[in-house]
Amino acid sequence: MAITVVGSVAYDSIETPAGRRDRCLGGAATYFSLAASFFTDVRVIAVVGEDFGPRQQSVFDKRKIDTRGIERAAGKSFFWEGSYLENLNEAKTHKTDLNVFASFEPKIPDAYRDSEFLFLANIDPVLQRRVREAMPGVKLVAGDTMNYWIKDHRPALLEVLKGLDILLINDTEARMLAANNNLVQAARAVMAMGPSSLIVKHGEYGATLFHKAPANAEGTERTFRAPALPLEEVVDPTGAGDSFAGGFFGYLASQPEVTPAAYRNAMFYGSVMGSFAVERFGTERLQMLSRDEIDARFGAFRELTHLD
Amino acid sequence: MAITVVGSVAYDSIETPAGRRDRCLGGAATYFSLAASFFTDVRVIAVVGEDFGPRQQSVFDKRKIDTRGIERAAGKSFFWEGSYLENLNEAKTHKTDLNVFASFEPKIPDAYRDSEFLFLANIDPVLQRRVREAMPGVKLVAGDTMNYWIKDHRPALLEVLKGLDILLINDTEARMLAANNNLVQAARAVMAMGPSSLIVKHGEYGATLFHKAPANAEGTERTFRAPALPLEEVVDPTGAGDSFAGGFFGYLASQPEVTPAAYRNAMFYGSVMGSFAVERFGTERLQMLSRDEIDARFGAFRELTHLD
Repeated sequence: MAITVVGSVAYDSIETPAGRRDRCLGGAATYFSLAASFFTDVRVIAVVGEDFGPRQQSVFDKRKIDTRGIERAAGKSFFWEGSYLENLNEAKTHKTDLNVFASFEPKIPDAYRDSEFLFLANIDPVLQRRVREAMPGVKLVAGDTMNYWIKDHRPALLEVLKGLDILLINDTEARMLAANNNLVQAARAVMAMGPSSLIVKHGEYGATLFHKAPANAEGTERTFRAPALPLEEVVDPTGAGDSFAGGFFGYLASQPEVTPAAYRNAMFYGSVMGSFAVERFGTERLQMLSRDEIDARFGAFRELTHLD
Repeated sequence: MAITVVGSVAYDSIETPAGRRDRCLGGAATYFSLAASFFTDVRVIAVVGEDFGPRQQSVFDKRKIDTRGIERAAGKSFFWEGSYLENLNEAKTHKTDLNVFASFEPKIPDAYRDSEFLFLANIDPVLQRRVREAMPGVKLVAGDTMNYWIKDHRPALLEVLKGLDILLINDTEARMLAANNNLVQAARAVMAMGPSSLIVKHGEYGATLFHKAPANAEGTERTFRAPALPLEEVVDPTGAGDSFAGGFFGYLASQPEVTPAAYRNAMFYGSVMGSFAVERFGTERLQMLSRDEIDARFGAFRELTHLD
């Protein structure tokens, strides 16, 4: 089943201990859709400026991603500059230029309207909500957010959470959103705000999937922890979380039914896609990835965690 | 097979967000031997003062732990006071009184000499080495250490590492010992110092087992990650690492053969024992634990991590 994703398509200038890249293609929707495209059809809603050319377009085309919802506006694309020199787990932002994103009004192409899965990448919750409401027929909605929206745009974010099935955030964000330092208690508090499932990302330690308690005691939904792969070298952590989301949601959308087992496998595919993303700068690794490599790494994750 | 453990038997005064306990029984050898005693015979080498009475002795006796190697010296037992008010993952030490431990000269009872497993808990590496050398016949030696010894007693510690099969340390210690921030690279560097296996403990995110690369490509030893249980409440983190070590090494010693599969199961039993230890203050939870509870929780860890 097809996924529609709304989020940023952007340029990033990134510095890490492994080196530096200027103005490479980035943005949450870009990482998400590249990762998800290995599993299912993906349709993007975003806005770019006049600096988005054929070379950037071809990155999406090669993965057969539908970009009819990427609007071309006068001006420059969203730009982010950051570094990970002291801490690979957390970016230090040097510059954020919203540019054409400042006046972004998401428009949903008619061809996207039969999408059964919707992903609201990390953007202004007001926009997330607008897209959510414009697509009432979707079967499953997942979304991301960040500390900035949690702190300074809480009412708008709480409205979005009511319409989400799955929220993906990191440890710090979960604790901040719930105002509770215990992860289990924080997860319960966050799910009480709307989403029936919560994925908390732990960076190099993987991610945990929580579900609201099922209605009866025989419910087979359970808390599930996927590891991250211990990696010899992390070249660039940018986009790891969005690639996780793409692998997770892409796999889920590819399944005939959204079962608890499908959720668990999806967690592994999320970790797999995140582990590839950080091996090269920007989207380089996702662009040259094959499905065989993905399945081989899925096997490596199983070996890493399974007793037998 | 029997394990001999050398380490501290002590009194701890602990403050956590859940409350406070004054002078409860503690020490690395105490936690280790209680946890390991659910799997195999355990023999302790330690020193205590005149404040160690029948009530403390009975904690060991009830778990059939051999305490003939616990020397009674004139003076007071080792005393530690600390708190976890700001961060449950790291203790803030308020006071450390070595007391009788300052002049500890480990003596190995003859009855301990046929032990096939030896655990060197976190004490002065000079003492660790002395015990290691006094027991040349052991089959498998594991050990722990801490930042203090890594920073200020490095030459003595490096001597100990040469005689270890398995080292158990946390992330910070591994990175400090190897002077390398990448965990995979740090693990390889630490194993080059001696131990053929390394367990890096990640606190609430579990632990990773690394092995030296096997001699041929068919080697079945592999990196393995055990989770920690997402807990509703952590009452007191003191002794979690030592309880992990006790569960891990105790299970290993209980197996007819030390196979790669035994190592993986041992990692899970380590996590299981660590997860119990933190549920109550001090050794309270380990004292009232049953083997059935341990196996039920092992099942919960499997559910938490396994796809099927």
